[in-house]
Amino acid sequence: MMREPYRIEARGLPERVTVYEVGPRDGLQNEAVTVPVEVKAEFVARLAAAGHRVIETTSFVHPKWVPQLADAAELLERVERVPGVRYPVLVPNERGLDRALEHGVEEIAIFASATETFANRNLNRTLESQFEMFEPVVARALGNGLRVRAYVSMCFGDPWEGPTPVAQVVSVGRRLLDLGCYELSLGDTVGVGTPGHVAALIGALAGDLGGPERLAVHFHDTYGQALANTLTALREGVTVVDASTGGIGGCPYAESATGNLATEDLVWMLHGLGVETGLDLPSLVQTSTWLAERLGRPSPSRVVQALGTAPDVKE
Amino acid sequence: MMREPYRIEARGLPERVTVYEVGPRDGLQNEAVTVPVEVKAEFVARLAAAGHRVIETTSFVHPKWVPQLADAAELLERVERVPGVRYPVLVPNERGLDRALEHGVEEIAIFASATETFANRNLNRTLESQFEMFEPVVARALGNGLRVRAYVSMCFGDPWEGPTPVAQVVSVGRRLLDLGCYELSLGDTVGVGTPGHVAALIGALAGDLGGPERLAVHFHDTYGQALANTLTALREGVTVVDASTGGIGGCPYAESATGNLATEDLVWMLHGLGVETGLDLPSLVQTSTWLAERLGRPSPSRVVQALGTAPDVKE
Repeated sequence: MMREPYRIEARGLPERVTVYEVGPRDGLQNEAVTVPVEVKAEFVARLAAAGHRVIETTSFVHPKWVPQLADAAELLERVERVPGVRYPVLVPNERGLDRALEHGVEEIAIFASATETFANRNLNRTLESQFEMFEPVVARALGNGLRVRAYVSMCFGDPWEGPTPVAQVVSVGRRLLDLGCYELSLGDTVGVGTPGHVAALIGALAGDLGGPERLAVHFHDTYGQALANTLTALREGVTVVDASTGGIGGCPYAESATGNLATEDLVWMLHGLGVETGLDLPSLVQTSTWLAERLGRPSPSRVVQALGTAPDVKE
Repeated sequence: MMREPYRIEARGLPERVTVYEVGPRDGLQNEAVTVPVEVKAEFVARLAAAGHRVIETTSFVHPKWVPQLADAAELLERVERVPGVRYPVLVPNERGLDRALEHGVEEIAIFASATETFANRNLNRTLESQFEMFEPVVARALGNGLRVRAYVSMCFGDPWEGPTPVAQVVSVGRRLLDLGCYELSLGDTVGVGTPGHVAALIGALAGDLGGPERLAVHFHDTYGQALANTLTALREGVTVVDASTGGIGGCPYAESATGNLATEDLVWMLHGLGVETGLDLPSLVQTSTWLAERLGRPSPSRVVQALGTAPDVKE
């Protein structure tokens, strides 16, 4: 069995891509099995050892909403920081920022909505008033020397409003960058994007912002489109791609949001295209196999299914 | 839950794509559960009713090798031909052609190898001598007014020889077309192709043949690359794509060959891109769900998993 793809370069792609690993936060937050904090710490350590340079580690969201991440503070105490690796933490509001600052976090992510209905349902805000909530979070974070990333959820459509107008995403994205965020992660939270939509949205945003340098993409594989959409984003100049170990995770507040793009399937494509990632694919597969054993279910990643040993799933 | 994707066109793609459905042959041939002939006939009828215009129906390979398709003759008697729909049948040799002619088949497919080792293992021939086997099959088929399609397997690599040289695939493909085949189906039998490899191979073949018009693609999703590879092939001008209902199937003679590209995931992307297929996606999903119940296992297609009702899987 092959452990690495053949490398055959394609025209018009970046030389290097940063894989922004969301497994410990976005991946685990939906898992039914409570994962012990020491397993999470080992998970983060394994990801760094496999070459990841940015690992979204946990979230300071209220445990009532995401019980799986109630151990955020303890996890941050346990994670041994590797020099050169960033460990951003999701922060929903000022209380979350306070806790992040107490625990030495150097980078946070905020979670915005591109649609009115999802802003109401997930943030209990209007599309407009979400910015009032984020403004002091971002300002205080920047004042404390932190970097702030902005997720923009439902960039392609949501289950209530249909397709999200491109101009609306551009407007939301522009305002988040104007607050001081360094990067937008364009989220296809319910997986409804297809490649033409991806090209149109990234083209419009890059036009407004003067280039794609501050754009990242975050695809879900609900309808099997995540990797084709990613390839399209790369052709539009995007060089940061969110992915989750083994394809675990999804959004707990969105109907039908299934797994994230699997890191291993993404890395297989990137290495096959000769795009550098700094990642060791066999180590990533080992980590997914190890994690699948702890979660008691096989990884949804095709690469892990092909290359990993079957997990010891207990009934 | 959405039943159809939003339509947002992309530049540089064909207006229309023919989905060459291989589920009844390539999909079923690997299934462990023996499917009754009346179920197969209903399967084929459902595919035609959903809008398919080409359905590879069965194979006249020896039942010793593919017991699932031992009922080929009986199935052909049962299938009610819909005007305008083609029902090609795989034919490995002259004996198979005799049987196809006896049963009123109007189109056949032959199965060639792009690599020496797979020719030895699957055809019991050398790469060179396979053409001697095919020559009388194709000549007699054409003489009887049949159309002949050629599969070229292992176009991107095989488990024994590594990556297949592009020039070798071009040579094999050229000779099959020179025999009189109307189309080449470029098979990634073990799923190892990535988009740069796809662009390089199709570019080389189209250069040799004066265009991509006689090329089809046949991807397996072993490493999750099938849809990204298909998108790349469409950009290179290919307009015929092989796919299998629900993603069932694979090649029984190749280690690690897992499922075909799922028809529903392909059609979701095509319709999302505004590419016409003539297919009714909800009907395809219904058929996959119906078939999954009969096979006793869920469909590997992401779209079917998202949209279909869970099959009544018995333990």
